[in-house]
Amino acid sequence: MPEIRKDPIIGSWVIIATERGRRPTDFVREPVEIRGVRVCPFCSGNEEKTPPEVLAYRNSTAPNGPGWTLRVVPNKFPALRVEGQVDREGDGIYDRMNGVGAHEVIIETPDHGMTLATAPEQKVEEMFWAFRDRIVDLKRDSRLRYIMIFKNHGEAAGASIEHTHSQLIALPVVPRRVQEEIDGARRHYEYKERCVFCDIVKHELKDGSRLVLETDHFAAVTPYAPRFPFETWILPKAHVSHFESGQAVYANLGWVMRTVLRKLDKALEKPAYNFIIHTAPLQEGPLPYYHWHIEIIPKLTRVAGFEWGSGFYINPTPPEEAAQFLRDAGLA
Amino acid sequence: MPEIRKDPIIGSWVIIATERGRRPTDFVREPVEIRGVRVCPFCSGNEEKTPPEVLAYRNSTAPNGPGWTLRVVPNKFPALRVEGQVDREGDGIYDRMNGVGAHEVIIETPDHGMTLATAPEQKVEEMFWAFRDRIVDLKRDSRLRYIMIFKNHGEAAGASIEHTHSQLIALPVVPRRVQEEIDGARRHYEYKERCVFCDIVKHELKDGSRLVLETDHFAAVTPYAPRFPFETWILPKAHVSHFESGQAVYANLGWVMRTVLRKLDKALEKPAYNFIIHTAPLQEGPLPYYHWHIEIIPKLTRVAGFEWGSGFYINPTPPEEAAQFLRDAGLA
Repeated sequence: MPEIRKDPIIGSWVIIATERGRRPTDFVREPVEIRGVRVCPFCSGNEEKTPPEVLAYRNSTAPNGPGWTLRVVPNKFPALRVEGQVDREGDGIYDRMNGVGAHEVIIETPDHGMTLATAPEQKVEEMFWAFRDRIVDLKRDSRLRYIMIFKNHGEAAGASIEHTHSQLIALPVVPRRVQEEIDGARRHYEYKERCVFCDIVKHELKDGSRLVLETDHFAAVTPYAPRFPFETWILPKAHVSHFESGQAVYANLGWVMRTVLRKLDKALEKPAYNFIIHTAPLQEGPLPYYHWHIEIIPKLTRVAGFEWGSGFYINPTPPEEAAQFLRDAGLA
Repeated sequence: MPEIRKDPIIGSWVIIATERGRRPTDFVREPVEIRGVRVCPFCSGNEEKTPPEVLAYRNSTAPNGPGWTLRVVPNKFPALRVEGQVDREGDGIYDRMNGVGAHEVIIETPDHGMTLATAPEQKVEEMFWAFRDRIVDLKRDSRLRYIMIFKNHGEAAGASIEHTHSQLIALPVVPRRVQEEIDGARRHYEYKERCVFCDIVKHELKDGSRLVLETDHFAAVTPYAPRFPFETWILPKAHVSHFESGQAVYANLGWVMRTVLRKLDKALEKPAYNFIIHTAPLQEGPLPYYHWHIEIIPKLTRVAGFEWGSGFYINPTPPEEAAQFLRDAGLA
């Protein structure tokens, strides 16, 4: 019998199609392989092919030249622009505002062949520090309300350049899905006087069936009502609402992230994936009901008409089975 | 300057990346071609390869044999099952219910090589009658709250069988996105005492910049804040909340649907697409604030980390440009 499960934060329903019970080998797998390209704008020596850097970790070398370990540059084709005021206005019966914001690219390494799964864990930690540095800088701009940080790994997950990189989009509004998470978490808090994410961490550590791995500071789990097969969340054990306030655990996070990605690489044969940092809105103080975390989504299935129309997802792999496969993948 | 536009129904924001302004030829295009297969379960003569039909339009021929023009069968691998009661229960800190519902396939024609764009318009009309007949039948089952009807055309849009077909999923809950539409439409009605969809039809007919075509009974438009490039909506001019009550205009709808699909085929070179029937919940009476319509989404871009994390979409083609391309495509 298929099961319909409720997402404990947003409240949306997911169909867990247990009768299909798709195993890793049942998905069409197109391993992400780094092939190399003739001229890569993100490789060392090609710094002039990107807009000037807004942040770089380098050893006393000059900006916009080689010698860096990590580099952040504005997106050459930005979805939003930093110039101008946020003007909201009517447009006939409709509403719009101008596209003020920021769109940056975090180039995590000059090494074209590296991925986060094959990188040293310190490299992954460094990436999280860069995310924090950019958030802290952009937060001073009061026009901005939210910063979405994410990675598209592999063409199937939306990456157009194969050299590993993450992206940051700073927005003049809090996006809908984030607001829904915040609203849902607030309702839970009002009713139970506890953070829903803290509840999930405690429950999953005790239950164990969806636990992928645990460290002193993190639990990596497949969520109870995942939209996608092998969706995995990394949740800090300590309650902190803003990612940029979580720096005490970035070193451990580097290891956890790298290990989860290696497990996915092993269990699913180097899948394309997205990860997204979920964090509280920029201009809010610490929130007792929201809890930053990371969601990782391997790209295994196609989203089709049913999902676009309903916001209701059909997931062919129960999260308990996915967690078992990921535990069995070892530390890779 | 990119623009951020608000969806007038749901209230979510969309970035219209005007500076990219992608034209039809800028998308990677993989035309959907019907190649034929050795044994197709949806072709005439292979009726035993599907579960027994729940509806068929046939000329006095026996059920589950040849001689039909349209056939509806349960999905062989259903996401939900018709048997059993809807039991809601707690599961530790979580909530679930069993997967009661229906999952059916509407095989619109025995002709393997036909698509809705190449079919006679009466064939497309017949499909809408079949949708209605199934809704009217399933509506009597009080366990069911919503029926989502959609089509995945082409592999990139999620079709696993190339013989043209639509799908119906009947659910024991109203899906989130539908509920958001209904809530948004109700808020508009409470404030303005008018249906938001009626407002959109009137505005778009007057404005003209997003109008793809108009008939006595329908307006086909690219919406003001589309999530996807070349997204097109077909809106009935008369206010009716439930698709199954709109039968007076199905004949005209057949022509409109076919014409829009032919325009998309011409402008975008036979794209994969999804369409979704948006209609009011099954067990509601006529609603003054909701208005059935059809959303058509050509599959041109990949949804990536930003969209999954934020529910915020970046659309590289302004709907005014998309409408112009579709108008220019003629009646094909």
